[in-house]
Amino acid sequence: MNDINWSKSEKQAARKAFDTAYEREIAALIANVREQASTISTVDDLWQLHDFLSARRHDLDGKYDYRYSMLIFVLARLVREGWLDLDELNELDIEKRTKIAALNQLFKD
Amino acid sequence: MNDINWSKSEKQAARKAFDTAYEREIAALIANVREQASTISTVDDLWQLHDFLSARRHDLDGKYDYRYSMLIFVLARLVREGWLDLDELNELDIEKRTKIAALNQLFKD
Repeated sequence: MNDINWSKSEKQAARKAFDTAYEREIAALIANVREQASTISTVDDLWQLHDFLSARRHDLDGKYDYRYSMLIFVLARLVREGWLDLDELNELDIEKRTKIAALNQLFKD
Repeated sequence: MNDINWSKSEKQAARKAFDTAYEREIAALIANVREQASTISTVDDLWQLHDFLSARRHDLDGKYDYRYSMLIFVLARLVREGWLDLDELNELDIEKRTKIAALNQLFKD
């Protein structure tokens, strides 16, 4: 995947899609954490929230990797997980969109 | 402090005070976390809550050490931090209460 070229407009579109997915995922996480926190009543609940935040932080740190060598994989994962729609990547060329759709299918379930 | 003897009734009283302080501190922490979580609106707020929980968990794990060799120090700290009142340790003998009060004074501010 290292030999894929990204035009300037594709880079802009990819960055926009990447940021949009991140914002959506963070918004969902915030809603989840606020909901979880509102029901905390024991020390176990507290540390369960802590463990959950540790895991999500680690996961997000690894997932949102903007290196161009990784971007096709990252975007495919974001589509697969529902944070992006394939339609939102229409500004990428057909080769990239085909790869993303293929990866998306490949890892489905 | 290792040569301090704890009678059976003192052990029961110390355990009760220790558990009471823990419950109070956890209840205050839960209230704090619920309050903090309810105001989360950015990813920075999320990780700030995570860092806060990491620090508090580490602190609590270290602080609530029930070894009898540590108990005078632990009880003094719990009094100093306001989780216990000296009056709640009335069932300990005068020597232990004097040590606790002295440690409490020593580390004040």
